[in-house]
Amino acid sequence: MKAVFFDVFGTLVDWRSGVARESRRILEPRGISLDWHAFAQAWRDQYQPALEQVRSGRQAFVKLGQLHRRNVGPVLARFGVSDLPEEVLSELVRAWHRLDGWPDAAPGLQMLAKSFLIAPVSNGEIALMVDLARLNGFPWDAILGAEIAQDYKPKPRVYLAACEAFNLPPEECLMADAHSSDLAAAARCGLRTAHIARPNEAGPGRGESKPTVPVDIVAQSVEDLARQLAR
Amino acid sequence: MKAVFFDVFGTLVDWRSGVARESRRILEPRGISLDWHAFAQAWRDQYQPALEQVRSGRQAFVKLGQLHRRNVGPVLARFGVSDLPEEVLSELVRAWHRLDGWPDAAPGLQMLAKSFLIAPVSNGEIALMVDLARLNGFPWDAILGAEIAQDYKPKPRVYLAACEAFNLPPEECLMADAHSSDLAAAARCGLRTAHIARPNEAGPGRGESKPTVPVDIVAQSVEDLARQLAR
Repeated sequence: MKAVFFDVFGTLVDWRSGVARESRRILEPRGISLDWHAFAQAWRDQYQPALEQVRSGRQAFVKLGQLHRRNVGPVLARFGVSDLPEEVLSELVRAWHRLDGWPDAAPGLQMLAKSFLIAPVSNGEIALMVDLARLNGFPWDAILGAEIAQDYKPKPRVYLAACEAFNLPPEECLMADAHSSDLAAAARCGLRTAHIARPNEAGPGRGESKPTVPVDIVAQSVEDLARQLAR
Repeated sequence: MKAVFFDVFGTLVDWRSGVARESRRILEPRGISLDWHAFAQAWRDQYQPALEQVRSGRQAFVKLGQLHRRNVGPVLARFGVSDLPEEVLSELVRAWHRLDGWPDAAPGLQMLAKSFLIAPVSNGEIALMVDLARLNGFPWDAILGAEIAQDYKPKPRVYLAACEAFNLPPEECLMADAHSSDLAAAARCGLRTAHIARPNEAGPGRGESKPTVPVDIVAQSVEDLARQLAR
């Protein structure tokens, strides 16, 4: 094993609290009040249908930020909010660049970086990954993932492009993720897999506390993964 | 100015001494003796013709390592060396992953990273950049350059793909390079430019001590560039 790849949204950073907090910070001064966590969830729920447009080939690859921008208006409308100026909508999209890592994420990555190459293999674009890394101290060797593959997980190309970028065969790469379905896709590409428990990803008790598919490593946190790999 | 991009071979790392040292380390135990610096220079001289095959569209993009691998046999033959086993040739290609940075490179990048996003925009591939970063302590935010652009400098696509990866317009990006012709290409794409003096890049007195084209900043080293940008 030479490299460890990471999913980011949900696995390393808490998108639900972060998007709720940032949306409130941006919209409340404009007199808008809504269920901020429900808004974060509703926006996130548009994620997979938007990615599927690209994965299916119905539209050319665009960065996740552009998909977030396209989705935010319709989601706000469902919460009774409309007619926001363009700069406010852009600022809302920037909420995804300001998400806090789970407490174990940065320390665990620092430990892993001593023995392995590490990179995000996220559906988020390079600029977004760079901002999250700066904010949270994620010591990546490179930013891999959807943008360099020009497609979205769980399409095989995304996992394979990451291995190829490091000049490594898939069996020397480990994909760490809090989402079993994505780990299944990585395993089908020949990568090793580690499940990271995030039982509260989408709210209390609404996340995977354990994998629902066979994986190579079951970890309770990124630090736990680092400890298991150090044995 | 939000980001500073760097050329790597010659600008940040000393390819001539490094390739000479590594080639000697690999070949001398096999009873081979030759002018190691001349060998390094001859191998490097194959660089532009190989890249031109890709830039011209005569061949699809392949990583620099594959071009180094293709060129090493013919160059060795000119020095009277042939019939080396494949694993020795591969090890020779790995010499390019073990080059030392100029003394000012890592400290200068550390200073710049406090105020700017920084990334290599090199013709070297991601895996090669990652190895040089690990060896020398280059604190990159992301690895940009030829591999993500799927073309080679000085083609405009390489500079523009780097700006786009950071979601920045070219005028908010600075290209730092010891080679005037590459800076001219970056300037034509709208990037700002900084020349880094490397008067001994290809041997004593065989490098650019100052730019031969108009640039925005003339620097004696990466640390000097960081100091000038901090003013």
